[in-house]
Amino acid sequence: MPDSEKVIELAKRRGIFWPSYEIYGGVAGLYDIGPIGTRIRNKIVQMWRRIFVEENSEFVVEIETPMITPSKVLEASGHVENFTDPIVECTKCHKIYRADHLIEETVHVVVEGLKPSDLTSLISEKGIKCPACGGDLGEVRNFNLLFSTNIGPYSGNVGYLRPETAQGMFTAFKRVYETTRQKLPLGIAQVGEVARNEISPRQGLVRMREFTIMEVEFFIDPEDKDVPWLEKFYDDEINVLFSNSKEKGERPSRIKIKEMVDEKLVVNPWMAFWMASASKFVQSIGIAKENFYFEEKLPYERAHYSSQTFDQIVEVLGEKVEISGHAYRGNYDLSRHSKFSNEDLTVFKKFDNPRVVKRKTILINKDKLKNNPELQKEVMSLISGKNADQIELLVNSGAEIKDRKLSEFIQIIEREEKEHGIKFYPHVVEPSFGVERCLYLSLLSAYKEKKDRVVLSLPKNIVPYQVAVFPLLDREELTAKAKKIYNMLKDNFEVLYDDSGSIGKRYARVDEIGVPYAITVDPQSLSDDTVTVRDRDTWEQVRIKTQDLNTFIQKLFSDKGFSMVSGEAKR
Amino acid sequence: MPDSEKVIELAKRRGIFWPSYEIYGGVAGLYDIGPIGTRIRNKIVQMWRRIFVEENSEFVVEIETPMITPSKVLEASGHVENFTDPIVECTKCHKIYRADHLIEETVHVVVEGLKPSDLTSLISEKGIKCPACGGDLGEVRNFNLLFSTNIGPYSGNVGYLRPETAQGMFTAFKRVYETTRQKLPLGIAQVGEVARNEISPRQGLVRMREFTIMEVEFFIDPEDKDVPWLEKFYDDEINVLFSNSKEKGERPSRIKIKEMVDEKLVVNPWMAFWMASASKFVQSIGIAKENFYFEEKLPYERAHYSSQTFDQIVEVLGEKVEISGHAYRGNYDLSRHSKFSNEDLTVFKKFDNPRVVKRKTILINKDKLKNNPELQKEVMSLISGKNADQIELLVNSGAEIKDRKLSEFIQIIEREEKEHGIKFYPHVVEPSFGVERCLYLSLLSAYKEKKDRVVLSLPKNIVPYQVAVFPLLDREELTAKAKKIYNMLKDNFEVLYDDSGSIGKRYARVDEIGVPYAITVDPQSLSDDTVTVRDRDTWEQVRIKTQDLNTFIQKLFSDKGFSMVSGEAKR
Repeated sequence: MPDSEKVIELAKRRGIFWPSYEIYGGVAGLYDIGPIGTRIRNKIVQMWRRIFVEENSEFVVEIETPMITPSKVLEASGHVENFTDPIVECTKCHKIYRADHLIEETVHVVVEGLKPSDLTSLISEKGIKCPACGGDLGEVRNFNLLFSTNIGPYSGNVGYLRPETAQGMFTAFKRVYETTRQKLPLGIAQVGEVARNEISPRQGLVRMREFTIMEVEFFIDPEDKDVPWLEKFYDDEINVLFSNSKEKGERPSRIKIKEMVDEKLVVNPWMAFWMASASKFVQSIGIAKENFYFEEKLPYERAHYSSQTFDQIVEVLGEKVEISGHAYRGNYDLSRHSKFSNEDLTVFKKFDNPRVVKRKTILINKDKLKNNPELQKEVMSLISGKNADQIELLVNSGAEIKDRKLSEFIQIIEREEKEHGIKFYPHVVEPSFGVERCLYLSLLSAYKEKKDRVVLSLPKNIVPYQVAVFPLLDREELTAKAKKIYNMLKDNFEVLYDDSGSIGKRYARVDEIGVPYAITVDPQSLSDDTVTVRDRDTWEQVRIKTQDLNTFIQKLFSDKGFSMVSGEAKR
Repeated sequence: MPDSEKVIELAKRRGIFWPSYEIYGGVAGLYDIGPIGTRIRNKIVQMWRRIFVEENSEFVVEIETPMITPSKVLEASGHVENFTDPIVECTKCHKIYRADHLIEETVHVVVEGLKPSDLTSLISEKGIKCPACGGDLGEVRNFNLLFSTNIGPYSGNVGYLRPETAQGMFTAFKRVYETTRQKLPLGIAQVGEVARNEISPRQGLVRMREFTIMEVEFFIDPEDKDVPWLEKFYDDEINVLFSNSKEKGERPSRIKIKEMVDEKLVVNPWMAFWMASASKFVQSIGIAKENFYFEEKLPYERAHYSSQTFDQIVEVLGEKVEISGHAYRGNYDLSRHSKFSNEDLTVFKKFDNPRVVKRKTILINKDKLKNNPELQKEVMSLISGKNADQIELLVNSGAEIKDRKLSEFIQIIEREEKEHGIKFYPHVVEPSFGVERCLYLSLLSAYKEKKDRVVLSLPKNIVPYQVAVFPLLDREELTAKAKKIYNMLKDNFEVLYDDSGSIGKRYARVDEIGVPYAITVDPQSLSDDTVTVRDRDTWEQVRIKTQDLNTFIQKLFSDKGFSMVSGEAKR
């Protein structure tokens, strides 16, 4: 069994995740996150929030917008038109396939970017039949991946489940901008559910029909390249596969953040800022630096709104998964929503000092025209649709109307005006993570086998429980003391109490769900008020006084250099 | 303007919440939770998690299940059939109304529990017309409030957005039970989005089309009335309006938790446990004890699955809102899902000591029958469908077949068997909160006016930011020092930095969003390294050394008795 399947089996057995509605046979692409999974997941979200929101609280805020989205919003975003996958149906058994995947898997041809009609031709050329029944396949058509519904009791009021949280930030941008500092940069973050009606989802937590995104839509002034906040990341190194290296078939190479910016390898310094943040975050949930890199997408691989995109790819235990995407969305979304809603979504940039600009103004001598409607009409039609420069050229070239100089009626003068600023659409940098993928990749990264047993070596900041408390045996005095210790610790730590089954099984269980320390109350505890503390990774045990437990465990979590055996316990 | 409208206006102006998709004219019943609202909301969820999950971590776990639900699940739960509201359409302008509300508002008749045909009759009897155009109204019909969609590319594969998170816990019960302690009580908690396609939602955050529920499905053995965990709440008092008092038109009265249990005013002690927890939680988010009570629903007011229900009602600033519901769902849901899924969802209760039961067994003397197929057939048909007692009676009464005694072929013997336990459906107690209602009621409870200005006196545990840092003026030296202080504090506290607009406006803003303390850097700060700290509620200021800030603020948050002016700062 491949390691990734062992993790999926472990997840099911230990309450981390499993297919939803199992008792009804399940629904492809829908997963429940179980008791252990939810605890890890919530901590992953917390880590993301710390690194993406709290550490940037000067300019990043978090909001919550609904999943249900009126049609107009997703027409503006382009999803109603473009958010599709090609499908093909068997004419005999009526099974439906994702056409591009079917072709790629059957005849090993890459078909990215081909139109449905091209795919139909390919299927017939290559003689591809229905894998289930051997029947002929029909015409390939585009299937929209938006889940659709009807809002309210009137039919025809179409709504969709959002396929990304981003549109909630774009439609709320104006209000968020106005209720915060009214300054750029402004990051609007969101952690929220999204839904995509995948044709035939298969890959566990990697391709789901409903999942959680955590992302920032980061609004910037594209002309302002001064990003002092980036300095703290200058010396950080990340692995990147730039598009030119990718085309040459090369592997990712290590590069400093500062170099990426200096060499203009990113279209805007903020791209580097969020990639550095993503690197920091991914490591904080236990994914080793050597196991991920950023891959620049080639122009034809990018979404229509993006002028540069990097995918952050994690490779671990034989799996290769995109954990985050970093897109430069430019002003695509705000300008589209402006157009579709007729609302002005630009921001006003005030100049430090008002700029004096000269503006040409056209003066028409109405006195000379008012008694001659026909002449007036001709003059007007001559200048209509022309700007001041063009009209000035005409006047200066000595143009005539009915033998009279145009300059008799038209005069161009130049006036000085003060401009206090300009209006423009902010550009958007978007770092975007899938929560369930983070959970899955954390599990894969933590999965270890030790003497035929499984240990989930999660980093301490995302463990489901910080400590477990067990009575060695199911005996009244021992369980009473163990519960007392559980109650003593639970105000300061996340504690799992368990008195079911043999102690060996309980140790195995906490190892498998990643609890770093297990405290056991044994008969000796009753006489000398000590307990044993066992380490998940080394399986070593130390015995310490109950009264010292709080401080001891605090130290195990606060001090990185402090190891259980070399530490206080030995003294 | 009523106070509740002032709060809604404040919420919009300060980024707490506002109608979603505003730039497109909004969608009724959908709200964005803004930057300030999301921070408060997240802390409310955290408080709930602490009180409902963490404090009961011995037997409560949290999971996450999808919004998208296959039809079968909601058929089993009864929602596909019963989750409806009566609607009526104008035959002229085709406007649709919620029929019961229309009747109640127009002719002030209570119509709860009436069927659509009764409502149609009432409308015609009372001569109720379309309020919009005066046209005749059509027949009243039931409108299902489930948002429906299609799962996957095959049409007819109907799914719905869940109207409650509960069904996710019921369908996952078996797996959660098996991956945890395999013991009752077992609470499965969830915080998740739900959607209800309301006819014409109007009441802001109170009646939304998409909102967040936080609830526990608490599985118990109904025969086990021993609840030691309840003891800590025994002396707590809550306001309750029991159904008998309600019928007499009385007001809620104060009662001790212990009394409720001893007097059997709740069908199970766990009902009291969760009501006490709800009381604690609601107070923790700033709702005063005198402003809420529990109202027992009358039998006809209860949902079909419930044998006792209490609503927790908050009355504040003229609003009356149900903040939580407490239902005793019995074994309705598990037994229904068992039936619809054909899965055994009972649990096995092991007896402390196996019980010896006597069981009658039927022995058939095959030797005597094997050569006489006809006789064999008659014997079998005589006993078929009868239990051991009935057959014994038959044998003892001397029954004959073809002139031969039945006792020749059939013998009844009694055997002793050991029973190790029994299988049964756990019963369910369900405490359920709406997150957005909690947010709204916290805001109403915190809303104060002071000298024509607004102060949001939120409790310190749910404030959006713990402290704000301002430079007094927008001068380089001051902003630099203020940013330094912001950076110094932000690892330990949630800090808002703001340097835009006058200091008066900034104080007003933090008062309005409930930030309890504001630190200001002024010219004196540059010479003596002190700053002022201002209290949101008293508007008093103290001046303290920058180096003491961390400890000072820590104290303001940790020590309940410590007030800013009487505390350290004065010494």
